[in-house]
Amino acid sequence: MGGDFAPRTVVLGAISASRKLARDSRIVLFGDKSRIEEILAEENCPAGTFDIVHTSEVIEMGDNPTQAFSKKTDSSIVVGFNHLLEGKIDGFASAGSTGAMMVGCMYTVKQIEGVIRPTISALFPTIDGSEALLLDVGLNVDCKPDVLYQYGIIGSTYAKSVMGKANPRVALLNIGEEKEKGNQQTKATYELMDNSTDFNFVGNIEAKHLFDSSVADVIVCDGFVGNTILKMSEGIFEMTRQQGLKNTYFENLNYEKVGGTPVLGINSTVIIGHGCSSATAIENMVLQTEKTIKAGVAAKLREIFS
Amino acid sequence: MGGDFAPRTVVLGAISASRKLARDSRIVLFGDKSRIEEILAEENCPAGTFDIVHTSEVIEMGDNPTQAFSKKTDSSIVVGFNHLLEGKIDGFASAGSTGAMMVGCMYTVKQIEGVIRPTISALFPTIDGSEALLLDVGLNVDCKPDVLYQYGIIGSTYAKSVMGKANPRVALLNIGEEKEKGNQQTKATYELMDNSTDFNFVGNIEAKHLFDSSVADVIVCDGFVGNTILKMSEGIFEMTRQQGLKNTYFENLNYEKVGGTPVLGINSTVIIGHGCSSATAIENMVLQTEKTIKAGVAAKLREIFS
Repeated sequence: MGGDFAPRTVVLGAISASRKLARDSRIVLFGDKSRIEEILAEENCPAGTFDIVHTSEVIEMGDNPTQAFSKKTDSSIVVGFNHLLEGKIDGFASAGSTGAMMVGCMYTVKQIEGVIRPTISALFPTIDGSEALLLDVGLNVDCKPDVLYQYGIIGSTYAKSVMGKANPRVALLNIGEEKEKGNQQTKATYELMDNSTDFNFVGNIEAKHLFDSSVADVIVCDGFVGNTILKMSEGIFEMTRQQGLKNTYFENLNYEKVGGTPVLGINSTVIIGHGCSSATAIENMVLQTEKTIKAGVAAKLREIFS
Repeated sequence: MGGDFAPRTVVLGAISASRKLARDSRIVLFGDKSRIEEILAEENCPAGTFDIVHTSEVIEMGDNPTQAFSKKTDSSIVVGFNHLLEGKIDGFASAGSTGAMMVGCMYTVKQIEGVIRPTISALFPTIDGSEALLLDVGLNVDCKPDVLYQYGIIGSTYAKSVMGKANPRVALLNIGEEKEKGNQQTKATYELMDNSTDFNFVGNIEAKHLFDSSVADVIVCDGFVGNTILKMSEGIFEMTRQQGLKNTYFENLNYEKVGGTPVLGINSTVIIGHGCSSATAIENMVLQTEKTIKAGVAAKLREIFS
């Protein structure tokens, strides 16, 4: 029931995703059962394609996330998180209220012991068609240096297990390449990261090299800065579309291609999608969830932080 | 003598600029007189086009700015600032060491009384061919809310006097449009700016609307964030050039079009150019200097802050 165009768009995205998932993966839909079945019938989708868990409530975008999560106990988000906590599902994705999704993460599956602050990340497309993991992209907008240091560990682990990088290069987003450059936060973080044995720190990266895969696989930054970068990319994508500029790279800046941002540093797999997710975005969000579950990121992080 | 390709490129840029300046404007060149005259002769430029003040030293990019400024007293930057302080010139521009230029500003003409921290700004191109003033873009990377508030005043004054905006719309760069969004810094700044009578505050702006002139004329942000935005724009411009993508907007992201960033909040007109300035960039920097001098920005700011 999450996202601006739910449930129709979500169901359509799930149908597309169901055709691409591995045989041993299965999608469980949480939401208004009769409306879901109606859409499935319209799309001539066989009834057995999904498990459906009926929920009667919806957390709206305007709701206070914490209050809504504790009161709307039969909403798709709350019921989904309970299934996740009970191990009935292995991962949970939604394009619904980001706030409620985060409350769900912290109240149900909880953060991994030793992780100071969980993070949300994004796969930023590079010009050669590959990607770099950017984190944090908006969850923690006042990051302390030790939090950013941990994001180096978390990002490196994700890059190894999900992106298949053997020895991921971790860079710190800064306004200069030299170690003495930056604000108080990045200078102190550089000190912590330099000579780290927890990950392969390659130094500072400037935003002009975001598009260039030759520098880093993982880019660590404060959530305010990371979110600004994502929003600016969104603006560039929109602008090129309005101008009728066709270019593969700018197409890749389209959030629909990625689908969602994984919440990392918690005890399970949770992916948060864009509120205005299209069916394509939902499809990619589901596929990304499968990939993240199979990579066992949460278990690996638990081991590292224990 | 400033910039990676000095003095040749600087002289070439000055020659082009000299053809476009008003009749009552005159360029004074500071640098190695014989080398300058050599270039002028090669270019068949009449000897009387410029005043030339000979200087024998050069502040290099690797020099410590404060030490270099106090020791290399016959460098083009130090001699230039002394001329500015003595009123022999009305504005000073250089593509040399940004650090030394800032030291020059603070040690000679000094900041305006009442201004907490001077700022550097950039004209960010919008999709309809106009521009928005973005500040700070890298001078103050740990801005307190009262400093950002003053940047609203400074930006608004610049937009009125140089950009010809009658009632400039001042926005705060943030990661959401709602007033409660942001980090500690932007939330506190919003509180200060809201209901301001010093300028026309229009609320938060997200980075996706940077390209859109319908929102704001002046965009205030922390120097770390502003510099990240400029660097990302630089990356986008480079990328589109490498990909052979022809588009007027992306061409406008080219720093050469603007030329330099004015230092605002000091008692005179100082423009700092990009270290790798081309002749075109130098030309635009000189023209921008003339424009800023004629607009009397420093005097207006002095009046406001007195």
